[in-house]
Amino acid sequence: MFGLMQDWPLTVDKVLDHAKQNFPRREIVTRSVETGALSRSNYGTVWRRAKQVSNALRERGVRPGDRVATLAWNTERHLEVWYGAMGIGAVLHTLNPRLFPDQIAWIANHAEDKLIFFDITFAPIVAAIAAKLPQVEGWIALTDREHLPAVEIPNLIAYEDFIAGHAQEAAWGGFDENTAAGLCYTSGTTGDPKGVLYSHRSNVLHALAANQTDVFGAGASDVVMPIVPMFHANAWAISFVAPMCGAKLVMPGAKLDGPSVYENLESEKVTFTAAVPTVWLGLLAFLRENKLRPTTLKRVVIGGSAVPEAVLRAFEEDYGVEVIHGWGMTEMSPMGTLGKLLPEHYAADHETQIKAKLKQGRVPFTVEMKVVDDEGNLKPHDGKSFGRLLVRGPAIARAYFKSAGAKNEKGECLEPCGFFDTGDVATIDELGLMQITDRAKDVIKSGGEWISSIDIENIAVGAPGVANAAVIGIAHPKWDERPLLIIEPQPGASPTREQLLKFLEGKIAKWWTPDDVVLVEKIPLGATGKINKLALRETFKDYKLPTAQAAE
Amino acid sequence: MFGLMQDWPLTVDKVLDHAKQNFPRREIVTRSVETGALSRSNYGTVWRRAKQVSNALRERGVRPGDRVATLAWNTERHLEVWYGAMGIGAVLHTLNPRLFPDQIAWIANHAEDKLIFFDITFAPIVAAIAAKLPQVEGWIALTDREHLPAVEIPNLIAYEDFIAGHAQEAAWGGFDENTAAGLCYTSGTTGDPKGVLYSHRSNVLHALAANQTDVFGAGASDVVMPIVPMFHANAWAISFVAPMCGAKLVMPGAKLDGPSVYENLESEKVTFTAAVPTVWLGLLAFLRENKLRPTTLKRVVIGGSAVPEAVLRAFEEDYGVEVIHGWGMTEMSPMGTLGKLLPEHYAADHETQIKAKLKQGRVPFTVEMKVVDDEGNLKPHDGKSFGRLLVRGPAIARAYFKSAGAKNEKGECLEPCGFFDTGDVATIDELGLMQITDRAKDVIKSGGEWISSIDIENIAVGAPGVANAAVIGIAHPKWDERPLLIIEPQPGASPTREQLLKFLEGKIAKWWTPDDVVLVEKIPLGATGKINKLALRETFKDYKLPTAQAAE
Repeated sequence: MFGLMQDWPLTVDKVLDHAKQNFPRREIVTRSVETGALSRSNYGTVWRRAKQVSNALRERGVRPGDRVATLAWNTERHLEVWYGAMGIGAVLHTLNPRLFPDQIAWIANHAEDKLIFFDITFAPIVAAIAAKLPQVEGWIALTDREHLPAVEIPNLIAYEDFIAGHAQEAAWGGFDENTAAGLCYTSGTTGDPKGVLYSHRSNVLHALAANQTDVFGAGASDVVMPIVPMFHANAWAISFVAPMCGAKLVMPGAKLDGPSVYENLESEKVTFTAAVPTVWLGLLAFLRENKLRPTTLKRVVIGGSAVPEAVLRAFEEDYGVEVIHGWGMTEMSPMGTLGKLLPEHYAADHETQIKAKLKQGRVPFTVEMKVVDDEGNLKPHDGKSFGRLLVRGPAIARAYFKSAGAKNEKGECLEPCGFFDTGDVATIDELGLMQITDRAKDVIKSGGEWISSIDIENIAVGAPGVANAAVIGIAHPKWDERPLLIIEPQPGASPTREQLLKFLEGKIAKWWTPDDVVLVEKIPLGATGKINKLALRETFKDYKLPTAQAAE
Repeated sequence: MFGLMQDWPLTVDKVLDHAKQNFPRREIVTRSVETGALSRSNYGTVWRRAKQVSNALRERGVRPGDRVATLAWNTERHLEVWYGAMGIGAVLHTLNPRLFPDQIAWIANHAEDKLIFFDITFAPIVAAIAAKLPQVEGWIALTDREHLPAVEIPNLIAYEDFIAGHAQEAAWGGFDENTAAGLCYTSGTTGDPKGVLYSHRSNVLHALAANQTDVFGAGASDVVMPIVPMFHANAWAISFVAPMCGAKLVMPGAKLDGPSVYENLESEKVTFTAAVPTVWLGLLAFLRENKLRPTTLKRVVIGGSAVPEAVLRAFEEDYGVEVIHGWGMTEMSPMGTLGKLLPEHYAADHETQIKAKLKQGRVPFTVEMKVVDDEGNLKPHDGKSFGRLLVRGPAIARAYFKSAGAKNEKGECLEPCGFFDTGDVATIDELGLMQITDRAKDVIKSGGEWISSIDIENIAVGAPGVANAAVIGIAHPKWDERPLLIIEPQPGASPTREQLLKFLEGKIAKWWTPDDVVLVEKIPLGATGKINKLALRETFKDYKLPTAQAAE
């Protein structure tokens, strides 16, 4: 027997409709990409212009399911294209301008983008890739005719001309809530980029979950500045969360440096913002140098990579700003866990709270999470036992676009039990707080037990004379794998094998002790500053551990 | 093209699963119906006992779609039956013990309840109705064998015996999210009671919407006490909201008097509670008499009827507790609007805020609302123009159970445009705050324009010598209807027609002025203390206005 409630499909056009209906004059302030000055719009105006986008797209032959791409900063125009495309059932594909032009071209071709909207900052990228994208029927520069960049590409038009003269009303929604709404590619360290295809339903449910008090907890009295770009998994849902709750939006455009971020915070009275740690390092340095402090900011969400303790302490201890440590993935829309404290933490002392906040946090309703061993057995929630981190929920990918990166014969990346394998290794503590301890491919499997490479590295890097430390697994005839400690000494230092192993003694389990130590001139780093374990594994692929020789 | 996200049906078993997985030791404290003392459970225990309920229900032959009824206070056992029944696809039907036994019997028969769980307080009701309910296969008293009431009914068993020995694991969910989950009858002033059939989807979406910061805004650090009963539209969603966010629950059982409510608040450190105004009158009187004040309470949701200004001011001004004025209906699950202020109000003075809080409030995302005239034309959002209040959303009824009270040939109670007609007349102001001005059937339609009976009554009741005032529409040959003012004078007073009309002058529009005034000994009141307009219309059905005679 079915319930007798109204049929109200969860489509994202309802989110902007809600804002237009209830908060038409709430501001959307954008730092103009053309001039660098702050310009003002509001939900009513963005709604009307998004309707113009819809009509212009339809006139250009864009049909439901067609991909409409953006190569753009966070601006009110980006938001207009966003809702204008999604509202008519087209798929808004955010291209990441930080990738190499060849990667962007590969992705745009794989996605079969029909139109590409781009900020003038990215004109050089467009010039470099346009010839490689025969399927693109039009290029729309997110500006007016006056600021149109001088790039030699066919079918170029200024955004203001593109929408000019179109009606400010257009039919939105009316389709199945499982209809595709957005596409975002994730590029791992290996293989081709893979597209995550969000649905209207997944975006709406994700935003509702994010709007809960213990998650982002934004309301109509908040002023929200998403520094995290819309091309990073929907600006961590803020593109939906803000209109859903009626918060004023501050869009930073192309300027993400400390002084610009600070000016936005203060002049617009921002209460809530979100970004990766590197942005905060820039802001905090600027604040310290100039003896300034944020006066209206209440909460920052920090994700993308683990929150450095110094950043956490600076916000919470120096400026009284609450840090919400987040973890997620493009495949999770992206919200996985949030470091919102529990009553048990609030009852404890400050240092306990700081320690808890350094963990990746707990799941909101709509995210299920578990940590398992290789056989799928649950690991205890003791904050120590680690295993593969699996997740499930309505805003988590079950497959990639065009089955890229598929893991099973059905083209799905699913586990048999319906969980998505994050590729991370983690612990969950007694209160449900999760902590990432390693990437699954970096964990060392010794005699059926797992050794965390990151745990050993974090300790070894503190040994005298050590500049950097890496641990990788080396094949072993008896134990399958055993850890090898690789040390980059500080200039002029030459710590010995015995000194280093002695330093680890008592700090890690005895059986975690590396079987050998090698000194290298330089530990290779990836583009994001993380240790390039792939390169290290290649370098040491024929390395023979002394213990292996003994066991043979 | 569909998105590629996981299939994760929105079923309510996931809500309690989430609580059990993430907050197993968070307390659920109940004031025992048997002893009046506080007893302690938690989400882990309630989850396990709810599983026992599921197994016991299955053993009794309860199948998906079968109705399982409760006649019960807010207790942890009620919560166990709730999730135990819904988890296996049965429909949890909350009977309202405040109705007359004959009404309860009518409803239980209409619903075809198979089993009825009841608190021992209600044994007399059960004794009175059992013989009239041939389809009921079993009566389960929510107690242990020791406290089993001595009622002469067949198939009576104590709850603790009912679940004893059953496994603490059972399969939940796995069905379509539109499956019926709950049934709650609403009794209007006319006609038979009508059943609202909630779905799993509607309950989950409603709870997610209610958990937003600007709605109930509860989190894991809150201690939530639902005084509003679970038989009043799911305790206004709190039965779902609290486990969803991990809040501690305080269940008041049968004791809703001032001293008991105060003891619960203080001993359990309640931060958030919800009830109808009468409960608060009791608490506030007790606080004043005993010179006490709540020390941990932060927010109260008040709904069911309009918040009296004195109650609002007492909480906000005397005790620093935020009042959230709510409006809703059983047909809306029940959330319609919430009086959470906007930045525009926070920027204004205290009296402006009080005035705003006396309105019924604004809609959260998932509720659409509009005010229209008889032809369906939108009325402006000016806080003055009133019209019929229509609503739409995923947790709003589209029909009643078994088509009771159906309004169209399909058995649906829909408007043609898909909106539900609330039967209320309301205004919406510039900021989106709605205010109920009348019931649609009480509004007076004069020359195609509407006159609010309540507006005139509220003013007339302040005239010298007036104890109570009512306004009804009387047939008029020229204007269709014109207002008649009915006055109940204070003892010994005898205000004249001229004095009363003079008093209204300048306070209402000239054309709203009643065409006549009559004095009566007593204005009839309904069971809830509201003016019984139905009786007044009956009394004055042949009344001839002097202006009508003149126009004929």
